[in-house]
Amino acid sequence: MTHEINETHDPNINSWVESANTSDTDFPIQNLPFGVFRQHDSNAAARVGIVIGTEIFDVAKAYDDGLLDDFTTPAVQVVLDCKQTSLNKMMTRDKEHLSAFRLSVSRLLRSDAGHSAERLAALRLCMVGMDNADVLLTAEIGDYTDFYCSIFHATNVGSMFRPDNPLLPNYKYIPIGYHGRGSSIVVSGTNIKRPHGQIRPDAEQPPVYAACKNLDYEMEVGFFIGTGNELGETIPLERAEEHIFGACLVNDWSARDMQSWEYQPLGPFLAKSFATSVSPYVVTMEALAPFRVPAFERDAEDPRPLPYLASEANQTGGGINLELEVYLSSSRMRESDIAPVKLSTSNLRDLYWTPAQMLVHHASNGCNLQAGDLFASGTVSGKEKSERGCLLELTWRGSEPLTLPNGEERRFLNDGDEVIMRGRCSREGYKSIGFGECRGIVTPAA
Amino acid sequence: MTHEINETHDPNINSWVESANTSDTDFPIQNLPFGVFRQHDSNAAARVGIVIGTEIFDVAKAYDDGLLDDFTTPAVQVVLDCKQTSLNKMMTRDKEHLSAFRLSVSRLLRSDAGHSAERLAALRLCMVGMDNADVLLTAEIGDYTDFYCSIFHATNVGSMFRPDNPLLPNYKYIPIGYHGRGSSIVVSGTNIKRPHGQIRPDAEQPPVYAACKNLDYEMEVGFFIGTGNELGETIPLERAEEHIFGACLVNDWSARDMQSWEYQPLGPFLAKSFATSVSPYVVTMEALAPFRVPAFERDAEDPRPLPYLASEANQTGGGINLELEVYLSSSRMRESDIAPVKLSTSNLRDLYWTPAQMLVHHASNGCNLQAGDLFASGTVSGKEKSERGCLLELTWRGSEPLTLPNGEERRFLNDGDEVIMRGRCSREGYKSIGFGECRGIVTPAA
Repeated sequence: MTHEINETHDPNINSWVESANTSDTDFPIQNLPFGVFRQHDSNAAARVGIVIGTEIFDVAKAYDDGLLDDFTTPAVQVVLDCKQTSLNKMMTRDKEHLSAFRLSVSRLLRSDAGHSAERLAALRLCMVGMDNADVLLTAEIGDYTDFYCSIFHATNVGSMFRPDNPLLPNYKYIPIGYHGRGSSIVVSGTNIKRPHGQIRPDAEQPPVYAACKNLDYEMEVGFFIGTGNELGETIPLERAEEHIFGACLVNDWSARDMQSWEYQPLGPFLAKSFATSVSPYVVTMEALAPFRVPAFERDAEDPRPLPYLASEANQTGGGINLELEVYLSSSRMRESDIAPVKLSTSNLRDLYWTPAQMLVHHASNGCNLQAGDLFASGTVSGKEKSERGCLLELTWRGSEPLTLPNGEERRFLNDGDEVIMRGRCSREGYKSIGFGECRGIVTPAA
Repeated sequence: MTHEINETHDPNINSWVESANTSDTDFPIQNLPFGVFRQHDSNAAARVGIVIGTEIFDVAKAYDDGLLDDFTTPAVQVVLDCKQTSLNKMMTRDKEHLSAFRLSVSRLLRSDAGHSAERLAALRLCMVGMDNADVLLTAEIGDYTDFYCSIFHATNVGSMFRPDNPLLPNYKYIPIGYHGRGSSIVVSGTNIKRPHGQIRPDAEQPPVYAACKNLDYEMEVGFFIGTGNELGETIPLERAEEHIFGACLVNDWSARDMQSWEYQPLGPFLAKSFATSVSPYVVTMEALAPFRVPAFERDAEDPRPLPYLASEANQTGGGINLELEVYLSSSRMRESDIAPVKLSTSNLRDLYWTPAQMLVHHASNGCNLQAGDLFASGTVSGKEKSERGCLLELTWRGSEPLTLPNGEERRFLNDGDEVIMRGRCSREGYKSIGFGECRGIVTPAA
């Protein structure tokens, strides 16, 4: 699990794409995430691009225009994958190819690349403004898995339902997870229709099939599988991160009233499967290298992870310092031009299990992971109240409503509410990089 | 929900494929299930065929050879789908097209079709012996869902874990289900490697990561989605079966010791995702029409299903009279030429919920179902001990071991054990049809 810092992370390099050089951009030249876009003023098919500043670099066009002749041979193989309508093909490439590609792109986009004026003009024609493109789901997601790896979230939720026994005995041994629904994963910006389902508002009466009343979000981070494993084969911890292509933000929308009625004994089902939103760009594991931190520090009395989930490298560098923010904007706030209000700030480094441990556990029974599969962290909450990553925790099941800047109260989400998630990695001496936004507006039930 | 009997179900028709006319064949001309096959002695790509007797009818070859000129226009559209390497494309067709195709195929294969000797000889060249082909997974399965719809199974399992409260309060209101793992679904005949996982053999000691000791099978029936629904749209009960393409047998292999340790609070995960076997042929809903029966008769004190799960047509004809058998053959039995021993006989009609109710519930939150998705019934058990569809029930968690014909005992599955599942529909005055076999041999852990 090496997270080598290389030329592409150099904080002193700038890009000739000026919008990438501001201090607050999520997408400096040190990031270079992938997205799938369709250009508005073009008949070109959807394809893979690289986000830089406020632009999307159309790699395939640059190649077709003969502008990538400096690219190394392994990098060119990845270039061709940019002609696909999803990242799945690229995700099957090994780290050497992907790294060579990243280096070639970085050198091409540097302000000191030494391009002739003519060449630079041609390259600028390969830039598509973000506001001139639709972004699509980045991958054809085969299987989707959702973990439950924040011990603070698990303890909070557990204490609401089982005050005497909030954390179950398996929690400190197993990165708890469950299979989620792949088909209903949507890209940021897609409206989220309030679902119907069985709820039981009066415990003395039979349940009813009605619109969900306790709609919630969950602030999560997702990881896309790159190269997979064969059915029956496991993945050792020291090679785990070779199988992770990159990361995105995830909003695991949750119908809490449906969930509490349906979830026993087989876990969440329709309370989650009506929609899951993901941010539109995939930040590669290589881009995250400078922001790696030690795994969560367990209490002295906590059990050590079992050997298949333990390594020195995971302990010292398996975590990711990724700060996550959730904002809410009600329709009345938007009408009054009131800015979205921040609800929480949490950090991925506070997860009890690292992404590598989640992946290793997932494959520890021989389950085959495949390129494009997505696994998410579970709600990322921290120790403090301001770090709670869903309304269930923030309002303590609705018993402590939030007050919005215009005086509105929220126990759970109202129709018209927009949830906006952001994520950003920072480290002294390095350029900060971000994940863009994962947004969704709740629309009324049918 | 009409299950019309038509010309293709006529018990008096025979086929010029002689092996389809025996009384014990699973595949008389009244069945005509689909499979994906690759011919051994040919360079032809994998493609869709129709099983009849001991042969697979290569529809694409017959078309290319100009032998399907009698087919109606809607039928020909489905013919072209037989050139695909999976059923997914065909699954998107509406019932009218599929029904027209079935009728055309039935008329072509009838013994009284009146083919010239020359034409018959040409058609015989389009028949591939089952033993001259590999059968592949019939569909690219996007999402896989597993239900829990046998009240006998749920009550048995519940009473082992919660003797005072075997059936949870939601059971009679909700067709309980959970998302399963799609990637590890394999076709009948694939060996099943005993998985490793976290187990806790001694409740006073920490868990260990070791080979599963309590490996089990579950006798289930699966249903493939045909035409889907858009995200946010629900499916009314009266149209539910239009969205079901057909059925197969499913073995939901289960690692019981892993399951009991991992499953709380989010349900089964690695205890199931190491492998799920499916039988290789898909029996269409039209072929099942003669075998429809009333839904499960609830006790008088049981709640009525909520309105979205209730209809007269579902009540009178939502069930399927499908008898299911499980056989076991140990490696020692095979060495001694002892025939597989029958462990149970159960019937799909004994499910508390019908397939249509499962599907409607699944989409009741707006979750989008897609062609090729698979949902399974959960273990099909009946009231009697001889009707228990898994070893967990049959041996009551291992406390009442089975004795095999050669004296071997079984609490759970041993390495080398082969589990064989069969399914067959019968009705007085109709030709019986079957599902073929779903087989798998347990191989040692890595």
